[in-house]
Amino acid sequence: MIGFMNNWELSDEPETLDDVLVNCRATLEYAVKTAHPRYFNQLSTGLDMVGLAADWLTSTANTNMFTYEVAPVFVLLEYVTLKKMREIIGWQDGHGDGIFSPGGAISNMYAMLLARFKMFPEVKERGMASLPRLAAFTSEHSHFSIKKGAAALGIGTESVICVKVDERGKMIPSDLERRIVDAKQRGLVPFFVSATAGTTVYGAFDPLIAIADICRKHGVWMHVDGAWGGSLLMSRKHRWKLNGVERANSMTWNPHKMMSVPLQCSALLVREEGLMQKCNQMQASYLFQEDKQYDVSYDTGDKAIQCGRHVDIFKLWLMWRAKGTVGFEAQIDKCLELSEYLYDKIKDREGYEMVFNGKPQHTNVCFWYLPPAIRCMEDGEERRRRLHKVAPIIKARMMEYGTTMVSYQPQGNKVNFFRMVISNPAATFEDINFLIEEIERLGQDL
Amino acid sequence: MIGFMNNWELSDEPETLDDVLVNCRATLEYAVKTAHPRYFNQLSTGLDMVGLAADWLTSTANTNMFTYEVAPVFVLLEYVTLKKMREIIGWQDGHGDGIFSPGGAISNMYAMLLARFKMFPEVKERGMASLPRLAAFTSEHSHFSIKKGAAALGIGTESVICVKVDERGKMIPSDLERRIVDAKQRGLVPFFVSATAGTTVYGAFDPLIAIADICRKHGVWMHVDGAWGGSLLMSRKHRWKLNGVERANSMTWNPHKMMSVPLQCSALLVREEGLMQKCNQMQASYLFQEDKQYDVSYDTGDKAIQCGRHVDIFKLWLMWRAKGTVGFEAQIDKCLELSEYLYDKIKDREGYEMVFNGKPQHTNVCFWYLPPAIRCMEDGEERRRRLHKVAPIIKARMMEYGTTMVSYQPQGNKVNFFRMVISNPAATFEDINFLIEEIERLGQDL
Repeated sequence: MIGFMNNWELSDEPETLDDVLVNCRATLEYAVKTAHPRYFNQLSTGLDMVGLAADWLTSTANTNMFTYEVAPVFVLLEYVTLKKMREIIGWQDGHGDGIFSPGGAISNMYAMLLARFKMFPEVKERGMASLPRLAAFTSEHSHFSIKKGAAALGIGTESVICVKVDERGKMIPSDLERRIVDAKQRGLVPFFVSATAGTTVYGAFDPLIAIADICRKHGVWMHVDGAWGGSLLMSRKHRWKLNGVERANSMTWNPHKMMSVPLQCSALLVREEGLMQKCNQMQASYLFQEDKQYDVSYDTGDKAIQCGRHVDIFKLWLMWRAKGTVGFEAQIDKCLELSEYLYDKIKDREGYEMVFNGKPQHTNVCFWYLPPAIRCMEDGEERRRRLHKVAPIIKARMMEYGTTMVSYQPQGNKVNFFRMVISNPAATFEDINFLIEEIERLGQDL
Repeated sequence: MIGFMNNWELSDEPETLDDVLVNCRATLEYAVKTAHPRYFNQLSTGLDMVGLAADWLTSTANTNMFTYEVAPVFVLLEYVTLKKMREIIGWQDGHGDGIFSPGGAISNMYAMLLARFKMFPEVKERGMASLPRLAAFTSEHSHFSIKKGAAALGIGTESVICVKVDERGKMIPSDLERRIVDAKQRGLVPFFVSATAGTTVYGAFDPLIAIADICRKHGVWMHVDGAWGGSLLMSRKHRWKLNGVERANSMTWNPHKMMSVPLQCSALLVREEGLMQKCNQMQASYLFQEDKQYDVSYDTGDKAIQCGRHVDIFKLWLMWRAKGTVGFEAQIDKCLELSEYLYDKIKDREGYEMVFNGKPQHTNVCFWYLPPAIRCMEDGEERRRRLHKVAPIIKARMMEYGTTMVSYQPQGNKVNFFRMVISNPAATFEDINFLIEEIERLGQDL
């Protein structure tokens, strides 16, 4: 990137159009090719052509979601799409509320904000000082945005109580209930449970029915973080993994992940209508005039914590039109089939060790690759220490060669392992074969 | 929109490509033409061709700002651009920190979050329950996002103390100090002052030097909400209006407003380096691995409250390359010249009354249009009642005819008035003339 880096400063005088085009070419040249079928590094991959065209149209329209007045079509499309998503969740007649927010972390933060407001509406005016100590619950494998949200909302990360998971990474309901009871005994007020549908690393689905029972029993808001796994609701074959989601009070669902909608596209769905408005409205008179000549209930701005809001809806809506629900279903099913293929291929293969047993529930396949020199070592600290370094080195080499990209991480007491995920419908069985060969090629000498 | 509305449902089966193209055409047809030089409705208007091209390239690259690994170029361009913006603010050598966030409301919320954390770092773990009652200060004309932020962060809207403004809408420093002292006497802890550089309605610039003196004296974080007016720093002719901004601890600055960068593009700039990271980091091991093969200080994700973050930088950076600072300066100066032209034209014109006296400081021109029937009425409730209805009716007619769009609102005890703003460099003197004629044409019978 050196050549590019020498010429990226911002100066007083304009560059020529030629220079600007050189900048564009260099930016694309050095960009990571996230649409490549061998880019497995993140939960958001691929590039859908209809989605891209829709994003270009969105940029061209260059407007703002806060009022119907300036985005009539997009506001209505958001309304239609959120309703459809609520129907798919299973909320009666698609009733409820929702918003497209700038990503899953913010969607989860919205859910926590709403849960707190529902139980203690006075918090809006009087702040946390007027409330008892709260307690939120989520599994130890859940996304870090739950803690980030608690920190930002003034609840504090210590009030987020981590619930144990089983060997597959699923929340253990009995441990959830034990911790809720324990928190109550310590004088805390449980207000929020975030179950995860598709954890980031293992791809685990928490048992939503059992969790819903506990939430009902204890009067706690049930949120489902389906940022990653929510899209499985589109698949007749896989939606059973989210059974019980229809009993949640809110759900995060990111079409920019498993549905391959261009970034960003994250929805928060809420079962109770009107709560978002009450929780967040400030009634700014210069924006939400009540004497407009249209039904101002279409103005979405005052239910958001943002003022201006980017148009994220059109790409999802247009892709849905172009593919139909069956089209999304087919691409989701295909990605899951590929991950099962990978799992079947490596589970008994020499040099591989699975991080957990059993078929993956989502497209996450977690495994160690053990180079020959490590395979023969005795189990112990030295072996762990060496194995911990394998994935980072293989990944560094992948990036140097530019052939493929896949994520790795440690988790708990487990040393670095690969987390393979597939969300790009352009990926093929051959790409999976390539990944295995590439790991072995780049790692055999370690 | 009826024809379009009949055919927008999402169904199981795909539509044909022709149908999808019909959808695209209809969406553009019914879209509000925000790039039109007579669209004066919002603070964000216009459509810059380089910015649009850059946004298309961004969509195509379809990546995420959280790690250098997946967005090396964009992360570096964000670094360069934030540094340049800090230099323009006047922070020594451009030192400091910052982030591009999803809009000014979130940028302001970041500032409040940082101010709270700076004074009480324990809030991150222990929440607001561990803190004394806080007090934030902002003018009664400031943006509603300050209160929204306080509600979301668990501080509560009652802890946002509104400071009086003068006739021009500028915060009165002596009133700020009086209220800080009063809050302390009531046992509250003042932690945050948000001065506004360019208020939403009047376009007023709070006196930053006097406010900085008070903040220093009382040890309070000084934030400048320059979402709207911050861009005047690019103009040698107008930047004096922000004198004192270099003493702020943080600043919101939205290039998607006065610099005509396509939506969304909002920066939060912070004087202290490293504070954002400490405040927001959760060190998720699957994303911010410390054994990566590059300098992980380039990973921006852990200083954000978001996880994934949209790439908003490229359009600003490329426009800056294409125009230079002088190009932005010229378009800003031109918009201010147009607003002065409007002000000069209507200040003594029959049928117009200015909401406040004196030349506008920003492009906001606030005025009542009085139809002939109202002009001859005696001042009193009936006249106020009728005048209150004039702007909404004229605006409704503008929208029916599709000729122009301009905002209106009441403020305090003032009935509905027009708030004209100009941020589109494509606007001309003729467009200003047209607006006046159009208001008179559509309003004379009222």
